[in-house]
Parts: sequence; structure tokens; C-alpha cells
Amino acid sequence: MHRTVTLLGATGSIGRSTRAVIAENPERLSVAAVVAGRDVAGLARIARETGARFAALADAGQGAALREALAGSGIASGAGREAVLAAVALESDIVVSAISGAAGLEATFAALTPGRIVALANKESLVCAGAAVMARAAAVGARILPLDSEHNALHQALGREPIAAVARMTLTASGGPFRTWTAEQIAAATPEQALTHPNYAMGAKITVDSAGLMNKGLELIEARFLFGLPAQRLDVLVHPQQIVHGLVTFRDGSVSAGLSVPDMRVAAAHCLGVDVRLDAPSDRFLDLAGGAPLAFERPDLVRFPALRLAMAALAADGRAAAVLNAANEVAVEAFLARRIPFPAIAALVEQVCTSAGSGAAPADVAEALAIDSETRYRSRELLSDGRFAAT
Amino acid sequence: MHRTVTLLGATGSIGRSTRAVIAENPERLSVAAVVAGRDVAGLARIARETGARFAALADAGQGAALREALAGSGIASGAGREAVLAAVALESDIVVSAISGAAGLEATFAALTPGRIVALANKESLVCAGAAVMARAAAVGARILPLDSEHNALHQALGREPIAAVARMTLTASGGPFRTWTAEQIAAATPEQALTHPNYAMGAKITVDSAGLMNKGLELIEARFLFGLPAQRLDVLVHPQQIVHGLVTFRDGSVSAGLSVPDMRVAAAHCLGVDVRLDAPSDRFLDLAGGAPLAFERPDLVRFPALRLAMAALAADGRAAAVLNAANEVAVEAFLARRIPFPAIAALVEQVCTSAGSGAAPADVAEALAIDSETRYRSRELLSDGRFAAT
Repeated sequence: MHRTVTLLGATGSIGRSTRAVIAENPERLSVAAVVAGRDVAGLARIARETGARFAALADAGQGAALREALAGSGIASGAGREAVLAAVALESDIVVSAISGAAGLEATFAALTPGRIVALANKESLVCAGAAVMARAAAVGARILPLDSEHNALHQALGREPIAAVARMTLTASGGPFRTWTAEQIAAATPEQALTHPNYAMGAKITVDSAGLMNKGLELIEARFLFGLPAQRLDVLVHPQQIVHGLVTFRDGSVSAGLSVPDMRVAAAHCLGVDVRLDAPSDRFLDLAGGAPLAFERPDLVRFPALRLAMAALAADGRAAAVLNAANEVAVEAFLARRIPFPAIAALVEQVCTSAGSGAAPADVAEALAIDSETRYRSRELLSDGRFAAT
Repeated sequence: MHRTVTLLGATGSIGRSTRAVIAENPERLSVAAVVAGRDVAGLARIARETGARFAALADAGQGAALREALAGSGIASGAGREAVLAAVALESDIVVSAISGAAGLEATFAALTPGRIVALANKESLVCAGAAVMARAAAVGARILPLDSEHNALHQALGREPIAAVARMTLTASGGPFRTWTAEQIAAATPEQALTHPNYAMGAKITVDSAGLMNKGLELIEARFLFGLPAQRLDVLVHPQQIVHGLVTFRDGSVSAGLSVPDMRVAAAHCLGVDVRLDAPSDRFLDLAGGAPLAFERPDLVRFPALRLAMAALAADGRAAAVLNAANEVAVEAFLARRIPFPAIAALVEQVCTSAGSGAAPADVAEALAIDSETRYRSRELLSDGRFAAT
């Protein structure tokens, strides 16, 4: 069986893992279209290497540059929102949705067409508009497969069991670079220190989120919508080795866990080869006897308040998660720009969430984007009054 | 949904675990018939407690004693081979096959009737006549579910995935009481030392088998027939904590593992509640954060030659596994009677297997039992010449 793939977020770390798997399986997979944000040269190179038919850049101002970079290749291209949606509309069997941030939301929504597989790595689709995305997928008959390691592990561990059989789902977290740090040390953490992830090379935003465990909180919210499990049946364990990615505890006490080497290509291969598994190269198989023992500990919600805030948003339901996510994006940006210290990320998020109060979940992308931009505005306002500034 | 259960091996450790699960779920499960080997008082007590309609003892000489022990209860009873088969023939939804040894083979075979679930803990059914048992189950439309922790974990971890998707199945072993012992220490091991299993309270035969890893070798052979996986795709990892019971590695590098507290009631509950999970009491759920890290190591085939012999029998296919099993039963008996030292168990098994040569797999129970009794005879002969005797 041959499948064609549309890559949204082709130049990022998930894009790279996905391209590696496609390159390993030329008889099973090929690329239809590639989409990126701003990186003209990177996207053009990827389009040529993968033999894509179409390349689109989200940045509307770079259409000419992209056209020039692709000159002579025969690959059509475009730039801006309409071009991205045109790439999504191009026929393909699988859409890999790995544009990071709220920018990926509209494209993910558009990718949900009858019979299509959407391999989902764009957190915001589920965090900001989870109910709407899942309802749309069910309505049109699209199939959503989780592409990040934790949800992919949970998806595989659940198998065909009904969700009613599940007592609890547990996502694991590496614990990040600050796992063993004191609160005082964390308060003084620099962006360089926050960007040192123990096991994965990822983008800056998600790496900072991992350092504060906000990333795991966002993943809990994703899991809630992906699997339709209520907040009180979802939890987190810190597992520094990142071999066990997720655990499904069934009502009878049996537990099924998803494991793999800490390599995003494993989950990517599962999604791209779903129903007819691809063959991994021999060095991508887990060797438990050759590794460190697998340790698990409960997360510390005092040193890592971001996880507590995300759990509260999860429990509150409604628009809380979209607010949390937008405030966090602004706060992480400010931290990376050295405008606020690390603990101010959670402090700003908490302030924004508290003042936002409750409200219904967004019914569609437009509502989700409206909550997102309104929250960003309020977050930036709060930032500008200097209360959260680094001393 | 209410299910009725026939308990073969009601007085053993698996019988006890199964009865505990049935007692916890009176609205879901009830007992139809109970069968044991020799223990009149134990079987009578269990029959009364469970409200069984029929009780059968394998020991033909104790029919009157059983009848007397059940006087006034209204529970019918019988003794001997025909009575055991009558108990199996009595209508029920699930037959728990937990008679240990070759004695359980005929009853297991008889239990395979259309639509029935056979929860299988009798190793010999698969080790001695695996091909025949699986073929019979498929032919009549009976459903075999593995009741021991390792195979149950593999069964759940596999889920509905086709066996063609599997690269490898791994069974875990506690490593037994001699895991960290030198070869010299093992050579001097007493029955009392071999009977000290680190995590489970089981019968003497299986506990000695665990000490030498023969038990894991027999389980590999079981797995081969249960899942239809060739020998080279099956392996063993020593995992002293016995939290992870089995791992399924898929071709794409994803691994699904089955975990639980080390308590046979979890697998029993899965089998008895299959498709509509039972609810476990809260103290039977796994708490990974509260336990020791999970360690894994490769088994040492030099200090534990029994596992090497079982792997050879697995690879040889045909009648080799039935021969291995019978020789081992005789050898373990002799060890427990202090007639031979611990290493002589494997030495005797090796001698018997080598001299037996190869041959076709038994086509039915009669052939399997013939190989079994012939091998026992030869094993006892070898024992009686004194070569393996304790010094």
C-alpha cells in the first residue's frame, strides 16, 4: 500500500523526523505538498529532496523568494494563508499537522476531510479547540492519529479497547533540566539552561514548556479530547529515562504501556504506517537490558506550578485551556527574550487565567482564534506594566 | 453480563486467585463446577463456598469420602477420570484450566467446545500438545485466553494487532531466588532455598522451575503456540521487580508492554471479565511512583542451562517440548525428594532430550500422553542408575 503525505511544518523537528521515515520507505510513502512558516531556503530544499508537487510558506511576503528558490524544479509554490490552505486541499492520504502554535489550528481544521488520516502534532488544535476538532473529525470521517510520543503511546496501548474500560491514563514527563533543582535555582534559570532538554532536540517554545512541565499540562488537555477521558482519570508521572511514554490502566488493574527509544521517528512511523506497520531500521529498537533502570516519581506541583495551572484549566473545561495556552505562549516568548525570569511564566499565566474567568469552549476555529488573540493582548498588557519583569 | 465458571484445579494457587475474583464479583460471575486432584476436604469446602453444582476429584479412590464431605449440601460429586470429564461437560461459559502437569491435558482438550472461553493456566496443554490444542480451539470455535501473568500481558499488549506486525515478543522472568548466586552456590542449593520465590506464592513444581528458569523456557514454548510466533521472535528478559510481565515489539519499533502488580488475580480478572472488564479493588492498581525502579537484564544461560535447553526444544519443534517437559517433571520430583542436586535437573533433562532425538509433534492428547509416559519411564531409568545422584 502506497500513501501520499502532506507535511505541515516541514522544517521543524517533527517535520524532520517525518521526512526521515518517508525517506526510509520510498516504496510505501511519498510527499504531496510541504508547508513551512518563514524558512524559504529550508522549505525549498525539502521540497526538492522529497519530490513534493507543491510548497507553501505561511509568510505572505516571501512568495517571490520561494518561487526563485524553486526555479527549474517544476515544483509549484505559493505564500500566505491561501497558499497554506491550497497545500492542505491538495489530495493526499495523510496530513502531518506539525505547525507549532495557534497558527497550525486553521490548517489542521482544513485537513479534516473524509477518509483522510491526520497525524496530529499541533498541540493547539486540541488544547484550544479540542471539542470542535474531534467533532469535525467524527462528522466528516477523518481519522486523527496522535503523532507525539506520549499520545501515540497511549493510542497504541489502548488499542481497540473501549474508553469505558479505562480507569486512568498516565502521561510520562522527562522532568526536564530542572527536575532536581531547588525552587531558588529554578528562579535564577537562564533561557540557555531551560533549553537543555535531557532527551529530545525540539523547538525552543516546547523545550521551555518541558522545563516547567507546562508541556505535560498541555498534553493532559490534549489527551482529554483525543481519548474523551475526564480530567480526574488523567495523570502525570515523571520518568527521566523517557522509555515509557504513556500508560493505560484498565478497570481490572491490568496496565498496557507504550514504550520506545526516545526518538520521534518511532511515533511518526506508526502514524505513517498505521494498519500496515513500516519496518524500522535495527538501531531503532528498544534494548531494555542495555539501559538504565526505569524510574518513576510523582511531579512536584510546588516547584512546577505550570502543571498545576494546566490541571486546573483541564478541570475547568470550557475556554480555560485556550486562555492558558495563549498566555503561556506570550510568557515563554518574554522569558526567551530575557524580559521575565522563569517563574514569571507561570505567574503571568496564573494571573491571566484568574482574570479571564470561565466561559464556554470555542465552537470553531474562529472562536478559538478570537480567544487566543484577545488573551495574547491582555497578556502583553500585563507584561508591559513591569510587574513580572526580571530584576 | 453474567458468566458461569468451571474451575479445573480449584485447590491450587491459580484456583485460589480465580475464586477470589469470582467472590469479588457475585453479580457478574458464579461457579458451575469445581475439580481438584486429591484434596477431599479442600474441594468440599470450595464447592460449598462457591455454590458449585458439581464437584469432581481426579483421585478415583476418594469418591465416597467426597460424597460424605458434601453430605447435605445438595452438591453432586464424583471421582476419577470420568467424573472430571463430566465436570468439564457441564455447561458453563468459562473453563479455568489450572490442573498442573500432564494430568490437565485431557481435561483442557475436552473443555474446548463451541463458544466457550478457556482460561488456560495448564502449561502442558501448550508445551506438550500446543499445535493440536490450538487447532482444536480454532476448529470448534473455542476461545483460548492465557491466564498466567506473562502470556496474559502479551495477549493484552498485542490487542487486535495482527501477528505479522510483531517483530518480537519478550517474556520477563523474576530471575528466581538464585538470580545473583554463583554456579557453585546454585550447585549446593537445597529444596527449601529453591522454594523461596521472590514475588509469588505458587506450587512447589513451578517454584523450582522458576529457580532454574525452566519455567520461563516452558512459557516461551507456550507463547510460540498461543501467538503463532516462530522461535527466533521470542525472547526472555530478567526483571526482578515483576511489574512488566511481557513486551510486544512491533516492526516499526513501537513497544506495547503489559504491567500489573505481581498478583495473579489481575490476569484472572482479565480472563473472567474479558470484553467487559471487571472492576478491581483499589489496592490492586499499580503505583509505579511508589515502587523500585524497573530493572532488566539478559538471562545467564550458563548458570541457568534449563532455559537454554527449553530454547533448543522450542527451536527443534516437533515432540522435543513434550520430552523436555516430562523429563523435567521427573527431575524436579527427584530434586524435591533430595535424590539429586539442583544442577542435575538440567543435566538429566539434557541427557533425556539428546537421547530422544527428534520426531513429529503429537497430533492429539493420546499421542502427547504417550510421549509423556514414555519419557517419564526413560527419565526414571536414567535416575535409577545413580549417575545424577546427590553426592
